Amino acid sequence: MKRNDKFIRLLMVLFLSIGTFFTYANPIKNAALTVIENNKIKVTVDEKTGSFTVLEKTTNHLWEADPWVKAAGLLTIKNQGKLENLNISSSKKIDVEQIGNDKVKLSFVNPAFENGEVAKGVSINTELRLKDGILEVEVMSVEKGEYNVTELRYPTRAFSLETDVDKGAAVIPQKQGVICPSYISPMNGGSFCMWDDATYYRKTSGKLPLFNNGIGLTMPWWGTHTEKTAVVGIVDVSARPDMFYNINNNGQYLFNSKGVMSPYKRIAFLDPVWKINRENERKMISYEFIPNGNHVDMAKAYRKEAIKDGYFVSLKDKAKRDPNVNKLQGAIYMGVYGGYPHYVEMPGMAFTFKELQDIIKTTHDELGVDNAFFHAWGVFSNFVPNCWPINENLGGVKGLKKAVDLTKKYGYLYSSYHAYSATLENDPEFNTDLFARDKEGKLRNTGSRWANIDQNKQLGLAQKSLHKEIAALELEADITDISFATFPDEDNTGLFNLAKYIDSLNLVNGTEHGQQQFIPYFDMFEGLTYLPNPNLVQFSHRAPLFNLVYHDAIAIFGKIQDPDNQISINGDFRVKSLRNILFGMGTTIFFSPYEFDGMKEMIRIANQVVSPVNRETFFAELTNHEYISDDFKLQRSNFSSGTEVIVNLGPVKQATKEGEMIPGYGYKVTFSDGRVAQGSFNLSYNASPTKKI
Amino acid sequence: MKRNDKFIRLLMVLFLSIGTFFTYANPIKNAALTVIENNKIKVTVDEKTGSFTVLEKTTNHLWEADPWVKAAGLLTIKNQGKLENLNISSSKKIDVEQIGNDKVKLSFVNPAFENGEVAKGVSINTELRLKDGILEVEVMSVEKGEYNVTELRYPTRAFSLETDVDKGAAVIPQKQGVICPSYISPMNGGSFCMWDDATYYRKTSGKLPLFNNGIGLTMPWWGTHTEKTAVVGIVDVSARPDMFYNINNNGQYLFNSKGVMSPYKRIAFLDPVWKINRENERKMISYEFIPNGNHVDMAKAYRKEAIKDGYFVSLKDKAKRDPNVNKLQGAIYMGVYGGYPHYVEMPGMAFTFKELQDIIKTTHDELGVDNAFFHAWGVFSNFVPNCWPINENLGGVKGLKKAVDLTKKYGYLYSSYHAYSATLENDPEFNTDLFARDKEGKLRNTGSRWANIDQNKQLGLAQKSLHKEIAALELEADITDISFATFPDEDNTGLFNLAKYIDSLNLVNGTEHGQQQFIPYFDMFEGLTYLPNPNLVQFSHRAPLFNLVYHDAIAIFGKIQDPDNQISINGDFRVKSLRNILFGMGTTIFFSPYEFDGMKEMIRIANQVVSPVNRETFFAELTNHEYISDDFKLQRSNFSSGTEVIVNLGPVKQATKEGEMIPGYGYKVTFSDGRVAQGSFNLSYNASPTKKI
Repeated sequence: MKRNDKFIRLLMVLFLSIGTFFTYANPIKNAALTVIENNKIKVTVDEKTGSFTVLEKTTNHLWEADPWVKAAGLLTIKNQGKLENLNISSSKKIDVEQIGNDKVKLSFVNPAFENGEVAKGVSINTELRLKDGILEVEVMSVEKGEYNVTELRYPTRAFSLETDVDKGAAVIPQKQGVICPSYISPMNGGSFCMWDDATYYRKTSGKLPLFNNGIGLTMPWWGTHTEKTAVVGIVDVSARPDMFYNINNNGQYLFNSKGVMSPYKRIAFLDPVWKINRENERKMISYEFIPNGNHVDMAKAYRKEAIKDGYFVSLKDKAKRDPNVNKLQGAIYMGVYGGYPHYVEMPGMAFTFKELQDIIKTTHDELGVDNAFFHAWGVFSNFVPNCWPINENLGGVKGLKKAVDLTKKYGYLYSSYHAYSATLENDPEFNTDLFARDKEGKLRNTGSRWANIDQNKQLGLAQKSLHKEIAALELEADITDISFATFPDEDNTGLFNLAKYIDSLNLVNGTEHGQQQFIPYFDMFEGLTYLPNPNLVQFSHRAPLFNLVYHDAIAIFGKIQDPDNQISINGDFRVKSLRNILFGMGTTIFFSPYEFDGMKEMIRIANQVVSPVNRETFFAELTNHEYISDDFKLQRSNFSSGTEVIVNLGPVKQATKEGEMIPGYGYKVTFSDGRVAQGSFNLSYNASPTKKI
Repeated sequence: MKRNDKFIRLLMVLFLSIGTFFTYANPIKNAALTVIENNKIKVTVDEKTGSFTVLEKTTNHLWEADPWVKAAGLLTIKNQGKLENLNISSSKKIDVEQIGNDKVKLSFVNPAFENGEVAKGVSINTELRLKDGILEVEVMSVEKGEYNVTELRYPTRAFSLETDVDKGAAVIPQKQGVICPSYISPMNGGSFCMWDDATYYRKTSGKLPLFNNGIGLTMPWWGTHTEKTAVVGIVDVSARPDMFYNINNNGQYLFNSKGVMSPYKRIAFLDPVWKINRENERKMISYEFIPNGNHVDMAKAYRKEAIKDGYFVSLKDKAKRDPNVNKLQGAIYMGVYGGYPHYVEMPGMAFTFKELQDIIKTTHDELGVDNAFFHAWGVFSNFVPNCWPINENLGGVKGLKKAVDLTKKYGYLYSSYHAYSATLENDPEFNTDLFARDKEGKLRNTGSRWANIDQNKQLGLAQKSLHKEIAALELEADITDISFATFPDEDNTGLFNLAKYIDSLNLVNGTEHGQQQFIPYFDMFEGLTYLPNPNLVQFSHRAPLFNLVYHDAIAIFGKIQDPDNQISINGDFRVKSLRNILFGMGTTIFFSPYEFDGMKEMIRIANQVVSPVNRETFFAELTNHEYISDDFKLQRSNFSSGTEVIVNLGPVKQATKEGEMIPGYGYKVTFSDGRVAQGSFNLSYNASPTKKI
């Protein structure tokens, strides 16, 4: 039996190869195919299905159409309360029309539901356009007929990778970024079993939104690459699709309700999901083909776009305007949490300004920290968004100014905690006057206390008191939390007005998480790293995609909800410190005053291991990042400053290709002047000899 | 304004107090109330709503009815595709009838939808019965009329805690167990901000199933306690409700769709959710009232029930029958992962039996490990569920027997990896012949590769080869994975048949995760700890609830998907080791052969710190567990062996109430003979002096 199977398989491979040979060896358009091509790529449209393949000529790699059912796209229609995805290649009429040498127009008219019923009056019009090494794919229009048409996944399952056959990755800028390898063998240590299982479960597929602070994408691009070639899709700046991912999944999720096994292979693909009812956008994705490319090249392709779109303003330019930006170099970001903003003068957690002074002094004198950015949470008498006056019970302006003066004396930065986007239910003065409302007057964000204030009212809240605080304390820095953690899909004039106002103060400006749209106005983002919830990291590897685009435009520190001192799925202090030097990020320590003593050793180590690297790479472009061991634990990065960082994120010592051994949780940094720092983190225990009492 | 508010509040409190005084000071039944009572508790039913209060007389604590809307219960009806929860206290007719001194019969006839429409023909009949310190609450019948009635939450929002007013906890046996404090002040370190926010978001409410391996409950009980009194609800052994939780949430989730703020207070409560269409069960929960009780007393109340229900067979008795059980004492559970069961002879991960011998030898000779249980993943030539023959390419029976003999020589245990519940899609011999099917012949578990085989076919699979392997290797232990990780809501005869067969072999028997129903047949559960997905731990503290019930009946080791060597939300090696000694669990190290070198230091430390405690407490009851610092990081446990363990799970040194200082990540163990072991885990780094090259 087995032998017969094998023989039939071989035969099929042969037939398919011959088919491919005839199809692609013949440059002349035949009856079933429409071809546009240039010297870099050749796009072949199957006139029967409207799906297309792309031959990347430099490496002769053929990106096939949907390997499961050759669908060109999937149209989502809400039908009797149920969402159904119609394969548009099932349309009663498909027109493929070549226009000149570089363009193909497609129309899909009357697609069919799975039961065969036709969605009459529904049609989809798209275009494929060649521009040098780029293929533009655009949804020109969708006629909805009488149907509730919500979304179009187009192109679907294009540029896919076959699991364990193609040795590449799907590259996704979720938060700081991840790559999802398309091969699950060979190694991933003991965790491998979770990876392999995940690929057959639903969690390896799903939909991610753009520009949110939860699981979303921080940049509007994604891509796939094999060992020899890469393709990156960059979404038009006006558009706002979701991204559908299927990572080494065999599509079993399509068959569970039917009670049968999926007949498909495991593949990895990433689809744009266009929102049909979102108007005033160009539903276009531009695929750039990069021979021999990988995640670094994809990020660099987008970097050009980001510069063009005005998101990129360099830290160097920012430091020219405000030399205090230089103080961020090598700084440890110290969040001192006094229970505020959640509560004012919270018992057991609030600090007096004298205590804050002591913490700052200890950080300098005892711990020897060279650079720090102190962020004090809990200095006001009122709840957010009323960040004023400075709390007299804790020491008043005089006491807090002493703390601020200390930071200046040591060359540190200081900001109090500010937020203008939130009113809290437990505030005794709580009311909904500032809430965003919909047209009917209903409150819009009742379910999110940190985003309930109308964005157009936030500038006014900042203007009420921020200037008073700056004057009273003679501040050099400001952190305004939350408002800029997302880029809502609406008119964001209110947010930009707040950002511009903060920027106009010419302080060292920081904000939480951050989004690329706000980079021109800020110097640091707290937390464009990874959240403690797992998401894609369960079957992927973290990659510094955001930093490959923006490292030299914005300083990145850890997320306050998952600081470097906390143990989480993202690592403990050892792993997070290694990732900091690899990605070119600063250390984040977030603690309540009573915890300070427990932070000291970590602060000391961060100052010795992380800060020197961050100091040298601060203004530099992150030029390269690579995985250099089979289990992806050993990684290397390079900065335009000439700095090279090698880290081992796992417990096992491993050798680089050059034969250099890096110990478990170890690192080797080569600075621009040739100095080398190397070492490793160790776990040990002190035990008193067991004694009898 | 503020003063007026306060005055009105005070006035309201006064009125309410007077009302309460009149209501509960008057023991005679009045027109609106029906009362049953004994010397321990007094149950007062409001005849208008059918909801009830319980006065626990010893501490004079009044457990109020639903503090939000005084609902007696919530009935879920699927109406035009939408689920709606009907407050049964809105019923057109509510009958409350006292029967004798100890029983009240209630009926709720024709409840109303939110729009006022009446669900005609629907009625709910319940009983409240007093039995000494216990209140039995039983749903006697539900008439569904013409409606699609799916669930009944009853009683609802009873025994609730008011957040930050009641200083207690909701106690939930999710996995090993958690407590969710009902007060969020004072301290929880920097993490406090996540806690506080979570209480206003949807994630602090939800529904948990019983007996699954994901987020479910491992035992059918839960409870709430204040500072002075506790109540635990134990579900009837025949029943299978879900549990609804609302942890310090103000019910905002009920109002988001309306665009208004919730008018309710933050409360914590736990409700049984009865499945109306589940027949042949007694829908009964017995509430036991425990003056001065906490989570330990609740677990101990259930322990009595578990013994009665036959789930409890002591490890002592198991060791009498098979003295090799003694070898589990203090054992480090070593999972050696060769890529199997996922792949056979997986490149880069498979080990030869010579390599396995070397690992075992090194563990003994170099690392000095006293007790170990080796679990080798990858010794067969076939994929699961065909765990036979032993792979000749890797060394065959002869080679593997040498490894087994070594474990015997050192006093260790050994098992190969076995599973009979799974066929894998990537197995070249894959087919669906063994799959569970529904009545129509559809495959039932297509979405879960580890549970796709019909439970009634699993015994046959074990019987095909397990005896051959035992004979060939002269085995003393067996681990059979997966089958017993859940207790499906169906006829489980097939699983019991497999369990009984394995038990009949009289080996040291282990299985993955485990469920209480299988304790009589096994000696160890791998992973009745916590999964790496966060669930309730985001706003709760881990508590050894399962171990408080079953520690002396089943040995518990870490979960292979989150072993002690791996960094996750459950901690890194430091935190997990401390939790192991606190809860009385063994160390778990799971690794691929190439990672062994990176495991050595952890194995060595585990043998010195964890094993001695596990050895002494192995057969002992876990008698006590308490949180002894304001931030819950400092914890103490006691075992019936006389052993006392104090650990500090946080980085900050803290003092016990007796003034003893425990360093960050530190411990103090007092053994039964008075010997004291104390120490702490430290993080350090070695660095070569920075040099220029």
